[in-house]
Amino acid sequence: MSRVSEAEDLLTECRGLAERAKSAARELAIAPGGAKDRWLRRSAEAIRERSGEILEANARDVDAAPGLGLNPAAIDRLTLNPKRIDEMAKGLLDVAALPDPVGEVITSSRRPNGLDVTQVRVPLGVIFMIFESRPNVTVDAAALCVKSGNAAILRGGKEAIHSNRALHRVLADELATSGLPEDSVALVQTTDRAAVGHLLRMPECIDLAIPRGGEGLIRRVADEAEMPVLKHYNGICHIYVDAHVDPEMAVRVIVNSKADRPGVCNAAEILLVHRAVAPSFLPVVAEALARRGVELRGDPASRSLVPTMVPASSGDWDTEFLDKIMAVGVVESLGAAIAHIARHGSKHTDAILTRDLASARRFVAEVDSSAVVVNASTRFNDGGQLGLGAEIGISTDKFHARGPCGLRELTSTKWVVYGDGQVRE
Amino acid sequence: MSRVSEAEDLLTECRGLAERAKSAARELAIAPGGAKDRWLRRSAEAIRERSGEILEANARDVDAAPGLGLNPAAIDRLTLNPKRIDEMAKGLLDVAALPDPVGEVITSSRRPNGLDVTQVRVPLGVIFMIFESRPNVTVDAAALCVKSGNAAILRGGKEAIHSNRALHRVLADELATSGLPEDSVALVQTTDRAAVGHLLRMPECIDLAIPRGGEGLIRRVADEAEMPVLKHYNGICHIYVDAHVDPEMAVRVIVNSKADRPGVCNAAEILLVHRAVAPSFLPVVAEALARRGVELRGDPASRSLVPTMVPASSGDWDTEFLDKIMAVGVVESLGAAIAHIARHGSKHTDAILTRDLASARRFVAEVDSSAVVVNASTRFNDGGQLGLGAEIGISTDKFHARGPCGLRELTSTKWVVYGDGQVRE
Repeated sequence: MSRVSEAEDLLTECRGLAERAKSAARELAIAPGGAKDRWLRRSAEAIRERSGEILEANARDVDAAPGLGLNPAAIDRLTLNPKRIDEMAKGLLDVAALPDPVGEVITSSRRPNGLDVTQVRVPLGVIFMIFESRPNVTVDAAALCVKSGNAAILRGGKEAIHSNRALHRVLADELATSGLPEDSVALVQTTDRAAVGHLLRMPECIDLAIPRGGEGLIRRVADEAEMPVLKHYNGICHIYVDAHVDPEMAVRVIVNSKADRPGVCNAAEILLVHRAVAPSFLPVVAEALARRGVELRGDPASRSLVPTMVPASSGDWDTEFLDKIMAVGVVESLGAAIAHIARHGSKHTDAILTRDLASARRFVAEVDSSAVVVNASTRFNDGGQLGLGAEIGISTDKFHARGPCGLRELTSTKWVVYGDGQVRE
Repeated sequence: MSRVSEAEDLLTECRGLAERAKSAARELAIAPGGAKDRWLRRSAEAIRERSGEILEANARDVDAAPGLGLNPAAIDRLTLNPKRIDEMAKGLLDVAALPDPVGEVITSSRRPNGLDVTQVRVPLGVIFMIFESRPNVTVDAAALCVKSGNAAILRGGKEAIHSNRALHRVLADELATSGLPEDSVALVQTTDRAAVGHLLRMPECIDLAIPRGGEGLIRRVADEAEMPVLKHYNGICHIYVDAHVDPEMAVRVIVNSKADRPGVCNAAEILLVHRAVAPSFLPVVAEALARRGVELRGDPASRSLVPTMVPASSGDWDTEFLDKIMAVGVVESLGAAIAHIARHGSKHTDAILTRDLASARRFVAEVDSSAVVVNASTRFNDGGQLGLGAEIGISTDKFHARGPCGLRELTSTKWVVYGDGQVRE
């Protein structure tokens, strides 16, 4: 077959996939919550029952991984085992237990002319998820999309293609028998990257694209997509230690924010300390962080107090280390800390540690981040921790959704007006 | 001066404007509601006091309008008079009386670990409004942006440049004395179209673009903008008359929906009638619409009942007439009406007229439009009518905001977490 006709075939295949998803989405939007939850519970059961098939497919991916150049950490993320399969099944049951967001009345009023007006939550339509490595995203994304009444088109990385196909098969097999459209959850079967480009140019069928993975993937999707994109760039999270602070609490929170899981987006990267407490506090926190293997990179004022710190380079203040590295600076005032965060932060998560009410209130008001935290770990900026139940990602945008995105963030709204013959004068 | 350096100057000018707006937005985001309302009330007063200056500037635009090729309707939209100036002033006072959306707590919970979590409304940042003709948009947009804590960059049409400059001068003169940043409301002073393109490529300064005007303008902005766009394409609004209906109510609602203001987006364009009532109902509604000067374009079944109808062309079902024209079709069932709307509608506003509860519930559930109306005029899809107070436009998108956009739709959110030393286990 010629390359031109292969390319045309791929476009036709993508178009068919998107149109079937759109058609499924119309049915799914009005599917009763009972059918969606039935599918989630049956899928949980099927994933456990068919774990042999899933692990076998995963083993093929894991065997091929070194040849694709995956490093040990990436291979670990790719690898499934009975415990991880059980976690996927539990995740499905957790989503089943969440309230159905569709139909929720957000605002309501009776107008002076007697019209009953409500604003009701409705699904977005078709959601296209593009992700890398972790096969559990296949299951999580399908669960959150379907529960919120949206059809899902899933596109995992080629390194996980066999795992994703096996998981998709299990999920898809339970759709029709649960009373849901068969095309509610689709997997892009080809590993051809051109398929992603085709689908991103079908805004008439796909309502939202969600990339999850490295910054390169996210930027590519954001650039190419002709539909809205729910995205998350990086998390350069700050902790500011105010002049009045409980040092013991501050050390505990900083160590947790930095060292609990340094590789995630809500881990702290930058520590700013008010100069009034720096002399007493910096040596203590530096020692606690050093015990956890964290390398500190200090500005001159910090290094004069803790000479073991590495000198911070100017680029360090704008770096998401995702590692056991933390940049440390001494600031003149709360205002200087807020200005530093405005200039260098990524509007993800920033925390203040303070005993002072006015400082806390000012920090909360002036720091423009998806989550602003007072006296607690930055690691709490997470759907589960904030009470959303489960999340499909964290948005660093201000439009539509900001911060962790759960079921509600996968919905739109509709105005519903009931009258008895009212006309506009 | 060379053309290259002129082009560079324009870019520099735009960049300066956008950066000043961004800086103002940071201050405005934390400005007390009292200062914002003071500015709105003082501006209302100043618009009345300085009406001579405004009318004089407007007269220059109106004089030049025929030379710019404006038709009489466009010239009418452009023209100000004391009554219209008074309406602008009243609009400002209405916005002042609305509750401040900033700081509103949308969700809140106390987590099991004692964290107090709230999701709080915050401004978006900088909003770029691009609009045509009506100078009152300058005032409305500035009012809604500032009240919601956003800085505004306004760009009106060149046909209204003198009016817009005069109105902007009045509004801007009241900012500093009201306690708000001077750059909270900026007007693009040049009429060079390239300025719009430059500003649309500054997502680092501008958070949202809102085009208001013809479809050409809206598509151009949507295509060029690198920031999110709140937009409204067209309103192909349907009215479906169900098998069980109060004919007197139905005629009243249809006439209002079509003929009250045929040129607006929430006017009805298409009438679908269940075949069970078509023989008795169509002649009656046709007569009532004819009395209001509405031209009816019918499908064969409608024309067999009302032979005076013009034959509908296939394009008529997909046309926003914005005129005293209505396409009329007979449908087999409620399901056929819903399918027709799904295929031909623009997801703006669609109404059902029925006595039957099951029909009403099914129509509301299955029709995917920004507003779904039961037994009332389509004309109610409007910010004021739905209780939003004032609107900056109607969004036909499903992302971020859908339907009339008031103050809340010009905001984002922020998670605020208060703890006393909690760490993540």
